[in-house]
Amino acid sequence: MNYTLYYSPGSCSMAVHIALEELGVAYDLETVPIAQGATQQEPYLSINPKGRVPALRVPGETRVLTELPAILMYLARQHPAGGLLPVNNAAAEARCYEWLAWLVGWIHGIGYGELWRPARFTPNEATHDEIRANGRQVVLGAYTKIEQALADGREWAVPGSYTIVDPFLLVLYGWGSKIGIDMRANYSAWTGHTQRLLERPAIQRVLQREGISIGS
Amino acid sequence: MNYTLYYSPGSCSMAVHIALEELGVAYDLETVPIAQGATQQEPYLSINPKGRVPALRVPGETRVLTELPAILMYLARQHPAGGLLPVNNAAAEARCYEWLAWLVGWIHGIGYGELWRPARFTPNEATHDEIRANGRQVVLGAYTKIEQALADGREWAVPGSYTIVDPFLLVLYGWGSKIGIDMRANYSAWTGHTQRLLERPAIQRVLQREGISIGS
Ligand SMILES: N[C@@H](CCC(=O)N[C@@H](CS)C(=O)NCC(=O)O)C(=O)O
Ligand SMILES: N[C@@H](CCC(=O)N[C@@H](CS)C(=O)NCC(=O)O)C(=O)O
Repeated sequence: MNYTLYYSPGSCSMAVHIALEELGVAYDLETVPIAQGATQQEPYLSINPKGRVPALRVPGETRVLTELPAILMYLARQHPAGGLLPVNNAAAEARCYEWLAWLVGWIHGIGYGELWRPARFTPNEATHDEIRANGRQVVLGAYTKIEQALADGREWAVPGSYTIVDPFLLVLYGWGSKIGIDMRANYSAWTGHTQRLLERPAIQRVLQREGISIGS
Repeated sequence: MNYTLYYSPGSCSMAVHIALEELGVAYDLETVPIAQGATQQEPYLSINPKGRVPALRVPGETRVLTELPAILMYLARQHPAGGLLPVNNAAAEARCYEWLAWLVGWIHGIGYGELWRPARFTPNEATHDEIRANGRQVVLGAYTKIEQALADGREWAVPGSYTIVDPFLLVLYGWGSKIGIDMRANYSAWTGHTQRLLERPAIQRVLQREGISIGS
C-alpha cells in the first residue's frame, strides 16, 4: 500500500510532495484544487474535516495525517536513509521544527492567512482590505528575517544538511513572487538558496508535475 | 550546565516548565513577565529577538531555542527515558506534532492571538473589538473539537501515553476559564483529562511555583 498525498498545486502541500519525491518512496497523488473550492467541499471534508491540504493517507492509519510539520517529520523519520532530518543530532533536529513552526504558524498562518483568507480573521468584509494590508506587512517583515538568516553563508536553512525545511522555503519564495515582491532584487541569499534547490532533480520533477514555475 | 527556561507565569511556556519537571532534569528559570511588557523589551529582546516566551537556553548552543513544539520535541527526545514522546512509534509521534501544530498555530496563534493581541492582526484600533470577537469564535469552535477528540474514552491526547501534548491542553483549559468559559459545564471529557493531569506531582509543583490555579 502506498502513501496518498492530498494536495493543491503550488500550495504548501508542495513541500510534502517534494519530500516524497526526494525520499523515493511510492505514493499516489489526489488533487484537491483550492481555487475551485475543493478543500471546503465533499468529498474532501469527510477525508480531512479541517478542509486544508496537505493531508497524507498512511497505510494502516484510519485518519489522514494533517499539519505540514507533522507530515514532514513523519516522512523523514520513517525513511531515515533519505537524510531529510538530522536525526542523530537532537539540537539540529529541533532547529528544523523551530523553523517550521515559525514559517507555518507566523508567515503562512498569519501573514498569508490574512492576505489570502481575511475571512478567517473577521467576518466583516469592510475590514478585509485592512487585514490584507497587515498580512503583507507580516510577510515582508518575516522575509527580511529569512534573508538575514540565510545570509551568513549557510547552504541550507539548518546549517550542515538539506532538510524538510528547505522545500517549504522554496514554496514561500514562489509565493513572494506571486504577491508581487521582486524576490531576486530584495533577497539575494534566499535567491541563492532557491537556485540550489532548483538544481535538485526531485524538485524539478515536482514543479513540472504541479505545473508551477519558480523564477529565481 | 543546566537548561534555562525563559517563561512568564501561566503563559504557554508553562507546558515547557511542566515537561522539564516531568523529566526530572536540572534547569534554571528566568521570569519574563508578559504583563509588565518584559517580552518586548531589553534585555529579553537580545536573548530572543522574537519577543516571545518560551525560550530555552541549551548548554552548548549559542542561540536560545524557540517555538513551543520545537522545545517540547527537543526535551522529550533528549531524555527518552522520561517517556514524553512515543519515540518508537513514528505514527503516534507524528500525531503529537499534529496536535501541537494545530493547538499552537490555530488556537493559540490565531484564536488567542486575536483575542489578546489584536494589534498583531491590524494596527487599526477601531477594529480590534471585531478581531477579538472573531478570536473568541475560533477558540470556541476549536474547543468543541478538542472535547470531541477526548470524548472517545482515551486517557491522553494521543491514545496510549501521556505526551508533550497533554500539558499544553492543560494550559488551554486554564485559559478557557480565564476568558469566562464554564469549562466544567461545557467540556466534560476535557475536564476529566484535566483532573488526571492535576493528579501528577510534577504538574502540582509547577502550578504552585508559577502561582497558577486551574480549577476543574
Ligand atoms: N496548519 C495547516 C495549514 C494548511 C493550509 O492552510 N493549507 C492551505 C493551502 S497552502 C489550504 O489548504 N487552504 C485551503 C482553504 O483554506 O480552503 C498545515 O500546516 O498543514
Ligand atoms: N509561536 C510561538 C508563540 C509564543 C507566544 O506567542 N507566547 C506568548 C505567551 S503564551 C508571548 O510570549 N507573548 C508575549 C508577547 O506577545 O509580547 C511558540 O510556539 O512558542
